[in-house]
Amino acid sequence: MSEERHGTRRSGGPRKAQEIFDATLDLLAERGYEGLTIEGVAQRSGVNKTTIYRWWPSKGALLGAALIGARRLDFTPPDTGSLAGDLESLLRTVVTLLTTRPSSDIAVSVLGAATQSPELAVHIREFFADRIALEQPVFDRALARGELAPDTDTMLLVDLLAGAAWVRVVLRQLPLDKDFVSRAVGTVLNGALART
Amino acid sequence: MSEERHGTRRSGGPRKAQEIFDATLDLLAERGYEGLTIEGVAQRSGVNKTTIYRWWPSKGALLGAALIGARRLDFTPPDTGSLAGDLESLLRTVVTLLTTRPSSDIAVSVLGAATQSPELAVHIREFFADRIALEQPVFDRALARGELAPDTDTMLLVDLLAGAAWVRVVLRQLPLDKDFVSRAVGTVLNGALART
Repeated sequence: MSEERHGTRRSGGPRKAQEIFDATLDLLAERGYEGLTIEGVAQRSGVNKTTIYRWWPSKGALLGAALIGARRLDFTPPDTGSLAGDLESLLRTVVTLLTTRPSSDIAVSVLGAATQSPELAVHIREFFADRIALEQPVFDRALARGELAPDTDTMLLVDLLAGAAWVRVVLRQLPLDKDFVSRAVGTVLNGALART
Repeated sequence: MSEERHGTRRSGGPRKAQEIFDATLDLLAERGYEGLTIEGVAQRSGVNKTTIYRWWPSKGALLGAALIGARRLDFTPPDTGSLAGDLESLLRTVVTLLTTRPSSDIAVSVLGAATQSPELAVHIREFFADRIALEQPVFDRALARGELAPDTDTMLLVDLLAGAAWVRVVLRQLPLDKDFVSRAVGTVLNGALART
């Protein structure tokens, strides 16, 4: 967490790291985790296989690095001026990720693969820890504005919203209504109970 | 939806359907979808392979039937007298499913496999449609008690709660706090915004 986060992003890797990460994510989307090989990544990225192995000893390690280091997965937390606006923006990012190719294939492949590879599971855990750390400013500002009580479980808010999108899209395989995002955020912030 | 739902459950299948379903779910938990074969199910359940094929032409169809028909996945909606109590009970069922073996292995294997098998994806969609139909009485009673406004998106409430458990357990791979269930339900019903 001490390295620079935005723009240059944590680099740590060979010169063509971004090409390698892109090839890794594209191959994952196309062929799934089973079909992902370091050989295939080398071929597609034009980087020597031994160079890739020098930095990442396994495809699990490589995919973990790609998830956190790929510029196309870069994430800047929203700052709309209100918690509702920021949460809608965060949820819209998740919805886009889950409903747009190839990111939807990547997301679901990664999740499926995590069950088969304990090593990859560690990297996925790191990816989500990284994301929640990047989202923290949204909640710091909401706390400062008095929108949330100081003891709010902010990770729970993210999990409720992102989880609803996962369940609706990945598990139920249903399309999202146009107002899914605003309704989900409205429910989590204001509650579902009828006002009497 | 017109068939009898509880106790006898929809049968439709050979005499030893429950043994076949159990073998299917156990093999899935142990070996994943890749390792699931009708041959293996036949062996474990002691039912002739041709009998199984006569009812279910593929392992996707068989798994779909097991998800909806297995007695061990039977589900009776809670009726605690309050929406909060019912939702806590529903969420506790999801949490138990995701944190107890072998059901957690089954859940994650099924999800991972759905991405590889469009046929299985159809059956998973049916499973979730079946579940939400079984949960409907919880919301009908809450509406009758005036706890929810008539235009409430009740599927959204389920998706927020179940989704939070999925994200926390399956994606983040973090343990659930003791009060995860009550806090999640409290947030969805009362809202996260600070009361001023």
